[in-house]
Amino acid sequence: MDNSKIVTAAVLLIGDEILSGRTKDANSGWIAERLTEMGIDLKEIRVVPDDEPVIVDALNALRARYTYIFTTGGIGPTHDDITADAVAKAFGVGIDYHPEAVAALREIFHGDRLNEARLRMARIPFTADLIVNEASKAPGFRIGNVHVLAGVPKVMQSMFRAVAPLLETGPKMLSETILANAKEGDVGTPLGEIQKRHPDVSIGSYPFQDEKGYNTNLVIRSRSADALAAARAEVETMLEHVKVTVSA
Amino acid sequence: MDNSKIVTAAVLLIGDEILSGRTKDANSGWIAERLTEMGIDLKEIRVVPDDEPVIVDALNALRARYTYIFTTGGIGPTHDDITADAVAKAFGVGIDYHPEAVAALREIFHGDRLNEARLRMARIPFTADLIVNEASKAPGFRIGNVHVLAGVPKVMQSMFRAVAPLLETGPKMLSETILANAKEGDVGTPLGEIQKRHPDVSIGSYPFQDEKGYNTNLVIRSRSADALAAARAEVETMLEHVKVTVSA
Repeated sequence: MDNSKIVTAAVLLIGDEILSGRTKDANSGWIAERLTEMGIDLKEIRVVPDDEPVIVDALNALRARYTYIFTTGGIGPTHDDITADAVAKAFGVGIDYHPEAVAALREIFHGDRLNEARLRMARIPFTADLIVNEASKAPGFRIGNVHVLAGVPKVMQSMFRAVAPLLETGPKMLSETILANAKEGDVGTPLGEIQKRHPDVSIGSYPFQDEKGYNTNLVIRSRSADALAAARAEVETMLEHVKVTVSA
Repeated sequence: MDNSKIVTAAVLLIGDEILSGRTKDANSGWIAERLTEMGIDLKEIRVVPDDEPVIVDALNALRARYTYIFTTGGIGPTHDDITADAVAKAFGVGIDYHPEAVAALREIFHGDRLNEARLRMARIPFTADLIVNEASKAPGFRIGNVHVLAGVPKVMQSMFRAVAPLLETGPKMLSETILANAKEGDVGTPLGEIQKRHPDVSIGSYPFQDEKGYNTNLVIRSRSADALAAARAEVETMLEHVKVTVSA
């Protein structure tokens, strides 16, 4: 691990079903958590439809900007699965049936059951490496800095776990959450002052409502444990003061 | 309603907490469902961090491309709430305390309680219209084709409902779901042929796994009820045939 290097990522979700609201995305949140644990900063999530030129444009914009890209969706056996072709176009490479991918599918689909539709899942852009995984014989693949994963969560997770050990990681973002027991508007001004005094930490304020009323979670994040502890101490002191003020 | 006009939209979620995986986004799925019901095509969702230049770039890219943009998050009372300033920069306008927004806040925050932090919520870009809503005295706002909503789901939903009647809508996308009772790979080839014969419909195939094993939902979408019914009839006939084939 190179402590000076920040490793970044983007997630590109491909699928009309998320944009129509029919399917609720759980993949991006799962990937976000894994990347944060690993010391990779997820900087952007995009959801685009099953539309080849749109996928190509998004891929090319994202892969130029971030260390790693993870796509999910569109690598199944039906006509609406167009991710592999879009990735090949984005990289300007050809695409064909990959012998290892065909062989893997043949292990479970015998004779006529390895039909034209299922064989589509073995079409892999040239120069890509397969992402062999435990959940599915149909592989994902990686090409350049782009990792192409399935859309079905269980399969996507298995593919992600298969590639995770290959990823470069940076210093982990440390995070602590403090329940303010105060309304966001009552801590806003002093919290902003603490943020200014501690540029090495990032302080987030997240209001919520529960049965007791309005409350706020304060999340302090930093790659430095010392910087985080120093900011936390100030936030806690501030909260004690605010509580006195509010109850007065 | 102009039947010839397709109305499009994008959702821009603003917040480090979604990218870190700490908060799971439910807002984009909710907005997606509402837009689909209304006859507005959601074409893109983006999630970006609390980083002003990034928000400005994303806003300018999206507002040039789609009919409507909906942002959520970053309009609260704390230092990490920077959406209003980013929107003002994207539109090249100034920003200041909006008298109506200040007056609304004063209705619930009396005396010192309407402090500097809470007053931040009344800072509105010049030329924007307030989105007054039932869930919060702090308003959202609309400027050009951009609608700036809160991040807290209950408040966001109230703001969305307040602006929904003002939106132009297009012909609704009709949708029907057929449970295939077949594996995706077994219907892929004939389904692709039906898609080719019915260019006015969009056929999506969504595999899933339940206690009975693998299965597939086929979703047919079209703005034409007749086109949808014609494609549906062919899909149903195909499924009867596939079932015979599979059981033979």
